[in-house]
Amino acid sequence: MQPDPTVAEQAALTSGNDFWHTTPAAGLPSITVTDGPHGLRLQASEDDVVTGRPATCFPPAVATASTWDPELLRRMGEALGDECRAMDVAVLLGPGINLKRTPLGGRNFEYFSEDPLLTGVLATEWVRGLQSRGVGASLKHFAVNSQETDRMRISADVDERTLREMYLRAFQRVVTQARPWTVMCSYNRINGVHASQNRWLLTEVLREEWGFEGLVVSDWGAVADRVAAVAAGLDLAMPGPDDAGDRALAEAVADGRLDPAALRAAADRVRALVERAAEREPAEFDADAHHALAREIAARAIVLLKNEGGLLPLSQGRSLAVIGEFARTPRYQGGGSSHITPTRLDDALTALSESAEVRFAPGYDDIDEAVALAAESDVALVFVGSEHETEGADRESLDLPPAHRELVERVAAANPRTVVVLSNGGVVLTRPWEAAVPAIVEGWLLGQAGGSALADVLFGRTNPSGRLAETIPVRLADHPSYLDFPGENGHVRYGEGLHVGYRGFDAREQEVAYPFGFGLSYTTFEYGAAEATATDAGIEIRVPVTNTGQRDGREVVQVYVSVPGSAVRRAPRELKAFANVPIAAGETAEVVLRIAPGDLAYWDTRVNRWIVEGGEYRCAVGSSSRHLHTTAVAEVPGDEVRVPLTGESTVAEWFADPRGAELLGQAFAAADGRIGRLVADPSTISLVGSLPLSRMSAFPGSPLTAETLAKLIDEVNG
Amino acid sequence: MQPDPTVAEQAALTSGNDFWHTTPAAGLPSITVTDGPHGLRLQASEDDVVTGRPATCFPPAVATASTWDPELLRRMGEALGDECRAMDVAVLLGPGINLKRTPLGGRNFEYFSEDPLLTGVLATEWVRGLQSRGVGASLKHFAVNSQETDRMRISADVDERTLREMYLRAFQRVVTQARPWTVMCSYNRINGVHASQNRWLLTEVLREEWGFEGLVVSDWGAVADRVAAVAAGLDLAMPGPDDAGDRALAEAVADGRLDPAALRAAADRVRALVERAAEREPAEFDADAHHALAREIAARAIVLLKNEGGLLPLSQGRSLAVIGEFARTPRYQGGGSSHITPTRLDDALTALSESAEVRFAPGYDDIDEAVALAAESDVALVFVGSEHETEGADRESLDLPPAHRELVERVAAANPRTVVVLSNGGVVLTRPWEAAVPAIVEGWLLGQAGGSALADVLFGRTNPSGRLAETIPVRLADHPSYLDFPGENGHVRYGEGLHVGYRGFDAREQEVAYPFGFGLSYTTFEYGAAEATATDAGIEIRVPVTNTGQRDGREVVQVYVSVPGSAVRRAPRELKAFANVPIAAGETAEVVLRIAPGDLAYWDTRVNRWIVEGGEYRCAVGSSSRHLHTTAVAEVPGDEVRVPLTGESTVAEWFADPRGAELLGQAFAAADGRIGRLVADPSTISLVGSLPLSRMSAFPGSPLTAETLAKLIDEVNG
Repeated sequence: MQPDPTVAEQAALTSGNDFWHTTPAAGLPSITVTDGPHGLRLQASEDDVVTGRPATCFPPAVATASTWDPELLRRMGEALGDECRAMDVAVLLGPGINLKRTPLGGRNFEYFSEDPLLTGVLATEWVRGLQSRGVGASLKHFAVNSQETDRMRISADVDERTLREMYLRAFQRVVTQARPWTVMCSYNRINGVHASQNRWLLTEVLREEWGFEGLVVSDWGAVADRVAAVAAGLDLAMPGPDDAGDRALAEAVADGRLDPAALRAAADRVRALVERAAEREPAEFDADAHHALAREIAARAIVLLKNEGGLLPLSQGRSLAVIGEFARTPRYQGGGSSHITPTRLDDALTALSESAEVRFAPGYDDIDEAVALAAESDVALVFVGSEHETEGADRESLDLPPAHRELVERVAAANPRTVVVLSNGGVVLTRPWEAAVPAIVEGWLLGQAGGSALADVLFGRTNPSGRLAETIPVRLADHPSYLDFPGENGHVRYGEGLHVGYRGFDAREQEVAYPFGFGLSYTTFEYGAAEATATDAGIEIRVPVTNTGQRDGREVVQVYVSVPGSAVRRAPRELKAFANVPIAAGETAEVVLRIAPGDLAYWDTRVNRWIVEGGEYRCAVGSSSRHLHTTAVAEVPGDEVRVPLTGESTVAEWFADPRGAELLGQAFAAADGRIGRLVADPSTISLVGSLPLSRMSAFPGSPLTAETLAKLIDEVNG
Repeated sequence: MQPDPTVAEQAALTSGNDFWHTTPAAGLPSITVTDGPHGLRLQASEDDVVTGRPATCFPPAVATASTWDPELLRRMGEALGDECRAMDVAVLLGPGINLKRTPLGGRNFEYFSEDPLLTGVLATEWVRGLQSRGVGASLKHFAVNSQETDRMRISADVDERTLREMYLRAFQRVVTQARPWTVMCSYNRINGVHASQNRWLLTEVLREEWGFEGLVVSDWGAVADRVAAVAAGLDLAMPGPDDAGDRALAEAVADGRLDPAALRAAADRVRALVERAAEREPAEFDADAHHALAREIAARAIVLLKNEGGLLPLSQGRSLAVIGEFARTPRYQGGGSSHITPTRLDDALTALSESAEVRFAPGYDDIDEAVALAAESDVALVFVGSEHETEGADRESLDLPPAHRELVERVAAANPRTVVVLSNGGVVLTRPWEAAVPAIVEGWLLGQAGGSALADVLFGRTNPSGRLAETIPVRLADHPSYLDFPGENGHVRYGEGLHVGYRGFDAREQEVAYPFGFGLSYTTFEYGAAEATATDAGIEIRVPVTNTGQRDGREVVQVYVSVPGSAVRRAPRELKAFANVPIAAGETAEVVLRIAPGDLAYWDTRVNRWIVEGGEYRCAVGSSSRHLHTTAVAEVPGDEVRVPLTGESTVAEWFADPRGAELLGQAFAAADGRIGRLVADPSTISLVGSLPLSRMSAFPGSPLTAETLAKLIDEVNG
């Protein structure tokens, strides 16, 4: 047994030994942590912190989220765990689950969705898969790190209900359901306080409310003040070494500014992590199998946005014009810390060539050549998309690059059978050109096997079932975040509040190009009547879904809940359950979906806790947030909330309470008649009703002194 | 000379003697204050705090704002001052200048505009007019009291730049330019602090920054804690008596919780007000002349929204169907504290009958009768509008009442020459029915002479020149405030920030029904080329405007300023100057408009003061915010702002500063090569550039210790 570590040893444990290792101290070995999350970026040489050793580049989260399939995420996590074991990595720095507040977010390709339920369900399975292999996850970036602009300093100014229901909700789900070994705090500030020094966030919410027992690591360089960070609940500051910071911690303990128990707790958590990592067995990984898995996930991530006249899947024997450099040189991941050196790389041009006779034109720089090729081919496939997207910089526009847009328009004019294939980490606007083309395939960034996966979908070997995890707006200016992004002088106001993504478009009844949850298939589905039952375990929804087409396929059945007449503001519809269901041609699936009580709850700022409101929950079931086919209603009893009446409660609130009305009526009846008339007169009750009761004493004839008011309050709550 | 007042006397002075009088104490008499602002509501009997003695009911602010004519506001203020002198009123409680954040605001009829410049310019002249008669104004409701829902408790959560540039800006203009005797604090909280106890607002901003020397009075019942209020800078709590509060003040002074100087200052300000009021000479007022003035202002307030085929003005000799009870029983003011008992009341039906042969149908309850009448008349005038609007309750919809809308549609179907005449305190939606009618007259709430004023405009005795002081949206859901109104559980987030009203519609490039500043005339105007010159006194704009029609008329020439490439977020266009110009038929006016430097400034949160940014100011001149006919550009040198570089300044900010770049370059050159490569490499500078310099020390190879950083900062700023 080791002796207790000294304060200096404890301090040393709470900072890194270098960029990617914990500090060996107090008898503990060093462990390796490294970037992810859609692959391993294990630094290949000491001098180059950017380039990683080859590893499978799975599809980034923008793509995996579009699968809406938790089981795929679990398998991907397992595969990543195997690669970590093969490369002696103890903790893989992912998943990144920040909400996509704005489509301009530079790191959106690393994040899942504009919806916290979809994000949380998928990330939970990823973590479970990874950690099933004895490798730790690092849930990041905690929290509200939804933009890159001024990311090290910007304060996300967000009200608590929005924080709880939107920006923290996926973190809460993953922490409580998958128990990640570590959580990574973000760079930014939240309502003025750095995440790395935010005791409310790192201790009160994360540990005390959610029961997190793992380690909190900083994002690289996120700690401004080591002492404040440890006091707030941060355990490990990365990277290192930081001898000056270690000394500052020891001095703070010595002179009483830092509770020694706080430093001890942080060091103990580093110890626990290192010991847990030691249980991991080394393993090999099968690069071919992982490539195949990457291809399967990529094909399932592709979203078929438009397919007029059944142009897709491509028929055999037709001549294909493949246009656009992205077909030959794929855009398959973004820039920054998640940039993976792939084990191999499939391009769509090669993959398509294996199934058909194709001719290629790179396009962007020679549009005339591409147009000529399209004109003499049966079908034209145009590969376009966004330019470089990276951590560290937000995007400036949602438009296709001008040359890409011109390419689409001119090719479509030359050949009416034009398919646009998009490669992009964040959404691009389709409205400017979509009417000109009969088919659009949203191919996101698909990882190293994306080229083959696109061929699988285009030729129908995979029947597309991907769904949008974020809304495609008509115009950027329509977006709920538009007026409040990216902030200035260190602050960004989250002015849309709860109305993130589709919640905002729905609240304003705005047209969108393609709604959240949308995606076509090569077959068709019909929904029967849904039934909803409220139980102690929440709401259970049953709905029959029939594949009415000629091909086997998958349907993503989605449940959106509304609470008419709610006492609090709510989005018109919120995703509360979904199921990814394979249904053979002609078959009917009886789909069962469950909504847990916790997912029905809202954050009540009067009592600072989650509350399930009693009442009618309308469960609309459909194939997107705006393609709702059947609605069932469940009557939910809800939680009891009694907010005590006080002097700050208004006259109207007192009268709304039976006992309060009785007591107040007696008090007024005994008083000067003027006050009674004010309350009784319809023309003045609207003025008087909003008065806090304590303020009544200011009015002539009021029977309320401080003493009588105190007595009333005692009686009404007693 | 009076002896110094005792503490008890001082305390007594700082609360009311009853609903409408100050306390006679310390040798001072009591003075009368009473509600306004578009007339006097001097309580007629002791038992009835609601009904006032007869007084001229001038048009409410919703109408006077639509005149866009400061000179009319001054004359109205003078007339109100004369009525106060006649009725021995020392202070008239107005003007109400809160910004119209939402068209649902229940008290919008008492407020001017969604624009702070228009509000401030008009209210300044009103105050000057009133106070020229020796009667004090009470600028209200200070501040950010832009809704009625939960108005006694709601916290308006607003960032400081928005506060300064939007919600406080009109107050600042009126305080500094017109020096109102009193300012009335509002009921609500601002960022969590009650206005009545808000030292930042009442002392730091109002007195120390703006130089206010008058008295701060509470809104009636707004004070929750007398001691905290006096400490914050409140002088007079109304109503009274409040013996318990007076005693609490004396006790707080005695036990040291309240600085005796604060109470003394408040009492001194009450004394100064009472003494100032004593200088007022009694006067009579000419009720006929005031009625005529009310009629003149009302006619100038009417906004002609639509007039296809020159249907208006009405020709002589045509048979008129006058439809709608509002023509006989006018809706001419709103409910609540501003409700005036008029000296007389004109209705449109009678006024129209004096100039034409009319037949009448009340309409709303018998639409068939109205339709039959319309069918057999040459022209149908349909009077519709909003239902009851009042202080104390926000509106729930912008729609016309269903019966009104049906009446419009059915009358228009029966007679293609239908004129809709609107009476409403807040905007109503026109889009649902406007295509069906050739002419729309926006008649607001026009005060006691509104009926005659409407006849003046309809018959062309007054050529309409009123302009919208607020946008009429297509749908309520389009409004910038829509997602963040009315808040819940005590807080309302001002999520649209600076983008109030037209600023938000413009920023999102949204369609509107009628834009801010819009209004038609019976004549036409043409704009020549504008010229703009920057001087030390701001920007001077000159533009020739020609009346190209057959009638004399007035044009409201409006200047909207844009600052392309501004370092801070700005609305696309902001009203910065306007002129109300009579132009005879065929004549050309050389219109000169001036923008003071203070009106060009934005609130810089880095240095917490107003800053004029240097650069190109585009001055678009036109007849509405979306009818801009000519643009001139002025090059403004701007203020020097040097924000010192610190450890929290980013690497990119250091490199952007010539001296910073030099010093940092030297430091990195002397260090481990890795850090230099990170900064030099385009693929990593986007990651490193946003690092606060102090955070660099966390990275291996950084040359920056606490000591070297301190030295760098000294050198770069030294």
